[in-house]
Amino acid sequence: MTVRIGVIGTGMIGQQHIHRLDTLVPGAAVTAVTDHDGEVAARVADGLDHDVTVHPDGFALIKDPEVDAVVVTSWGPTHAEFVLAAIGEGKHVFCEKPLATTQEDTLRIIEAEVAHGSRLVQVGFMRRYDAAYRAMKQTIADGAIGAPLVFYSGHRNPDVPAAYTREMAIVDTAVHDFDVARWLLDAEITAISVIAPRSNRHGLGRGEAEDLQDPLLMTIETSTGAVICCETSVNIRYGYDIRGEVVGEDGTVSLADRGLVQVRTAGTAAVGVPGDFASRFHAAFDVELTEWVAEVAAGSPLSGPSSWDGYASAAVCDAGVEALQQGRRVSVDLVEQPALYR
Amino acid sequence: MTVRIGVIGTGMIGQQHIHRLDTLVPGAAVTAVTDHDGEVAARVADGLDHDVTVHPDGFALIKDPEVDAVVVTSWGPTHAEFVLAAIGEGKHVFCEKPLATTQEDTLRIIEAEVAHGSRLVQVGFMRRYDAAYRAMKQTIADGAIGAPLVFYSGHRNPDVPAAYTREMAIVDTAVHDFDVARWLLDAEITAISVIAPRSNRHGLGRGEAEDLQDPLLMTIETSTGAVICCETSVNIRYGYDIRGEVVGEDGTVSLADRGLVQVRTAGTAAVGVPGDFASRFHAAFDVELTEWVAEVAAGSPLSGPSSWDGYASAAVCDAGVEALQQGRRVSVDLVEQPALYR
Amino acid sequence: MTVRIGVIGTGMIGQQHIHRLDTLVPGAAVTAVTDHDGEVAARVADGLDHDVTVHPDGFALIKDPEVDAVVVTSWGPTHAEFVLAAIGEGKHVFCEKPLATTQEDTLRIIEAEVAHGSRLVQVGFMRRYDAAYRAMKQTIADGAIGAPLVFYSGHRNPDVPAAYTREMAIVDTAVHDFDVARWLLDAEITAISVIAPRSNRHGLGRGEAEDLQDPLLMTIETSTGAVICCETSVNIRYGYDIRGEVVGEDGTVSLADRGLVQVRTAGTAAVGVPGDFASRFHAAFDVELTEWVAEVAAGSPLSGPSSWDGYASAAVCDAGVEALQQGRRVSVDLVEQPALYR
Amino acid sequence: MTVRIGVIGTGMIGQQHIHRLDTLVPGAAVTAVTDHDGEVAARVADGLDHDVTVHPDGFALIKDPEVDAVVVTSWGPTHAEFVLAAIGEGKHVFCEKPLATTQEDTLRIIEAEVAHGSRLVQVGFMRRYDAAYRAMKQTIADGAIGAPLVFYSGHRNPDVPAAYTREMAIVDTAVHDFDVARWLLDAEITAISVIAPRSNRHGLGRGEAEDLQDPLLMTIETSTGAVICCETSVNIRYGYDIRGEVVGEDGTVSLADRGLVQVRTAGTAAVGVPGDFASRFHAAFDVELTEWVAEVAAGSPLSGPSSWDGYASAAVCDAGVEALQQGRRVSVDLVEQPALYR
Repeated sequence: MTVRIGVIGTGMIGQQHIHRLDTLVPGAAVTAVTDHDGEVAARVADGLDHDVTVHPDGFALIKDPEVDAVVVTSWGPTHAEFVLAAIGEGKHVFCEKPLATTQEDTLRIIEAEVAHGSRLVQVGFMRRYDAAYRAMKQTIADGAIGAPLVFYSGHRNPDVPAAYTREMAIVDTAVHDFDVARWLLDAEITAISVIAPRSNRHGLGRGEAEDLQDPLLMTIETSTGAVICCETSVNIRYGYDIRGEVVGEDGTVSLADRGLVQVRTAGTAAVGVPGDFASRFHAAFDVELTEWVAEVAAGSPLSGPSSWDGYASAAVCDAGVEALQQGRRVSVDLVEQPALYR
Repeated sequence: MTVRIGVIGTGMIGQQHIHRLDTLVPGAAVTAVTDHDGEVAARVADGLDHDVTVHPDGFALIKDPEVDAVVVTSWGPTHAEFVLAAIGEGKHVFCEKPLATTQEDTLRIIEAEVAHGSRLVQVGFMRRYDAAYRAMKQTIADGAIGAPLVFYSGHRNPDVPAAYTREMAIVDTAVHDFDVARWLLDAEITAISVIAPRSNRHGLGRGEAEDLQDPLLMTIETSTGAVICCETSVNIRYGYDIRGEVVGEDGTVSLADRGLVQVRTAGTAAVGVPGDFASRFHAAFDVELTEWVAEVAAGSPLSGPSSWDGYASAAVCDAGVEALQQGRRVSVDLVEQPALYR
Repeated sequence: MTVRIGVIGTGMIGQQHIHRLDTLVPGAAVTAVTDHDGEVAARVADGLDHDVTVHPDGFALIKDPEVDAVVVTSWGPTHAEFVLAAIGEGKHVFCEKPLATTQEDTLRIIEAEVAHGSRLVQVGFMRRYDAAYRAMKQTIADGAIGAPLVFYSGHRNPDVPAAYTREMAIVDTAVHDFDVARWLLDAEITAISVIAPRSNRHGLGRGEAEDLQDPLLMTIETSTGAVICCETSVNIRYGYDIRGEVVGEDGTVSLADRGLVQVRTAGTAAVGVPGDFASRFHAAFDVELTEWVAEVAAGSPLSGPSSWDGYASAAVCDAGVEALQQGRRVSVDLVEQPALYR
Repeated sequence: MTVRIGVIGTGMIGQQHIHRLDTLVPGAAVTAVTDHDGEVAARVADGLDHDVTVHPDGFALIKDPEVDAVVVTSWGPTHAEFVLAAIGEGKHVFCEKPLATTQEDTLRIIEAEVAHGSRLVQVGFMRRYDAAYRAMKQTIADGAIGAPLVFYSGHRNPDVPAAYTREMAIVDTAVHDFDVARWLLDAEITAISVIAPRSNRHGLGRGEAEDLQDPLLMTIETSTGAVICCETSVNIRYGYDIRGEVVGEDGTVSLADRGLVQVRTAGTAAVGVPGDFASRFHAAFDVELTEWVAEVAAGSPLSGPSSWDGYASAAVCDAGVEALQQGRRVSVDLVEQPALYR
């Protein structure tokens, strides 16, 4: 069975997902697209080698009987309404992060999904599909390092656009670390503190743009007692470098350096560091959509990040922003978890 | 345009390629299969989620008008006749290595392809599609290490089946090193010497099977003067480990260790080594078929390993076997290279 | 000129230093020893291949005209009085850490040394003499990573003796990290917070001994704005592993893995991790005493850790213990730094 | 007991050894020196902080009753006569490599030492004292990789002086690899072939100096059947890089990269490569002389490289030069090994 997919939002990430679904993901076919800029949607549709329906808006697309499942890659503030509409139609929906831009909206989604009675929503936390993170989780599951006690998560970007603001280090950048930490440690986050070290000069004097507090260091407590040290460094120039180490009772497991070759020249032996997000995680995106489509096609329960994960990460982001702004430890108090997500 | 593909030989590698072509490779569709064991072919056909024609033999499949291009994954000794038949039909043919089991047959293929006037044949030397080897070649092309002078190529298997014979270390195992060396160094091989060190105990006393001379060390000369040191170790137990270092005038480039995570336990910091061929090279196979199908679909000149590469590697294998058996350096004398392959 | 040295305290570390001074350190000779257990001192003296005076106590040793400089390796609570006595005699004194067990005593020492008018005291923070830390500091000084913003310091012990208490993770273990951080970052520590993750099971149920809160994570602020993340894990079994990474504006510098050989067996490529403190730092001790003796012999200003460093690290330890006990951030308020230490 | 040492030859290496013996080596004292240039010897003597006798020649030094043991660091062609003279006096003699410049002379030394009845001679193959090579040998001895089958030894220099000739790649450079291979593999070398790849441009057009055949690749057979692949690259610019991997039946052991810190900047994660011989092996020299002096002082049997090792390596060098000049495999036929060396 081919899963017929409608894509809401045909910007960069939307186009990449359309390409993935059309060419790499077995059993998927993009049958409909839409965008708030209708011309962009039409142009993307024209560029495909098969017919797709261009809908005037996401709600029309969601109702299209030729659409089995929906991918939401529109602007963040529109996510919630499209996800809710898809649930309303009883259709599977893959929503890029964030699931919603407020905790309240994530809770409305949870309520709707619980009312529906089975999972329909998957959130695009693609790190869970990265081979290295999976090897890390497997190493922990194998008991090789004992119970995890500390997780260091370093999130380093070479630079960020002018539109990047102080809080985005938490809600846009660290949110990936929050989710992968919850998943690796099998724990909920219960509190967060943020400290801003001396600022990187590259984040200061950015013309019209806000001066950044960069890097940020977060100390994050969890329900198992494991603690997360999360660093965001978003102007570090040398590369896009995702570092991670889980310290356990008997040993540790770390993300390894990723260079394919080692070059010995001019007094050093060096391996490459990825230059950007895309080169680091493109394979994870492929796997993410492939597994999602396979589960949707098979009608089997979804194993990927859920509405609950979208809600929990939103709650941590809110607490993180408050902790940053107020300079104090902030608790994360989650609602009771519905049985659907256990 | 979808490239409709017929697959001759539905054993393990044939089935893997069918799966790749059907699910991962954009623009490909398997439309016909055959096998010397018709029941196997029928069973494989039944397992697919779409219709394919099961042909009584490869020649019928090649003539099928619903077949645009042919993949040959049958038993080695049958390769040449199928490739020649495909050329006779003017159809593209992807042939797993070896292109043929005798130099003479590879030359007959070259003759037929030259008569046809354009390249139709690609040989399955998948290492050229491995990301690490490509990074190595790019590093050389960038001039980072100067002109290449020495290439160490270590080909290590944890073990081999009972049917594996002495000469297979050259014609089955090292043939991959020969091809990748020719490609990395942009040179033809001109002579080969083989020396057999003390034998690994795991290759001795193999029941009914022949005692192996394992490892083998080959010293291989090339047209540019660069020299290749090739080691085959096919009972080395610790893993499937492909090592490579090109030594240049100013530096070197090596295949990096491949572990995704580093584990610190019990007194060591360790990364994993691949366990087998499939886990090491599956991605290269994907890329190989994807690029081939894309070139076939576009009607653009083939950039992959050619009949000439099939011939040249066969010639080196013949010389290598002679060098092993006679304990002396054996020259490799190639015919003049047709313009088609320059 | 040979520097004649008297050693106060002939326990394990005292004996090691005697051996170093006698055999490895150019220009040094141990001429006197003492210990609170006179028999031990006599036995150590007998074991040497040259004559040494065995003094009844440290004060007598310090006054011995055959003693040019004093090494204090006695029990921590006795350090301050011996150091003060040595200053009183105008003699150089190398004191193992801690310089004193209370801040007040370190300030008395500073007062006495300032009154003397030149530095006489060196404290045994040997990490400053470790080749890897020195390479790290040099990398920063070279500007290769820009201004340092974050320093991760992981201090991991395989296990600790029964006498090890909760607070020792700070005053005995992390004190080394405090000092090396101050030195690497060229900054004073201004505040410290401590968080105790889930406890390692190996630190619980220790018979008569206190349950440990292990690991500990400290977030430490400094005068330049750089922030230190310090981890102590003192029951981590896998090895004695000192980790460090300085994150700068443009890049990072880390302590490299230390294995001398890489072993490829059983599915992994592994390097060794040191098993204990001694194998990790013995060379640093050699360099430390060699440089100290050379400076003493030359009459040149001391470049090693000073009384001020002893005081500042004591102040951080006091704040750290308070932060641990009270579960809050504690400021470190230092007295004004005398000119002698600038 | 202090071993009083006379040093013959006060050039660079002689001065380094004098410094080592005077300052770092326990139980050693340099009491006499000489040099073919008496003024140099006198100047070196003046530079020491204690009295030494300056002898008119090595023979006078050897007879000096204040000299217990002799270190020979003079010009290679003079080694044999000084070693023989020392044996004649029944004195221990540490001789830098080569033991002698002809096989014949090494055999005369063996004859004299055998006549004396116990070992007096140690040859300066310092790699046996390098911690990494020792860890490699220990790994083999532990059985971790099974029986050794292949040893790759890469000897890379950034450049060589104008006086460096073609044959020196074998007799001056590779001789270290020959010795360490014999020691690691516990085997005698039985044959050698040499092949010259395309020449490094840095070794060509050297003004007055001879064009070099650089790199050289040697295939070396041994008495156990293990085979050595030895590469000399003496103009490789990027660093002084000693590579080694022993391939066994079940795994391999390699010399690890040596960088103390890893630096992440500008798209790479890099560790340093040593720049020269001295920085790579200075610690091995320290250990070498320390162990020698300890054994001499204790009167215990010498465990370091013997006259036999000097002879065997000379025989391999002779065969290697012949193999290079004649372009063929040359056997190494050793005399019967006297019991003294077993």
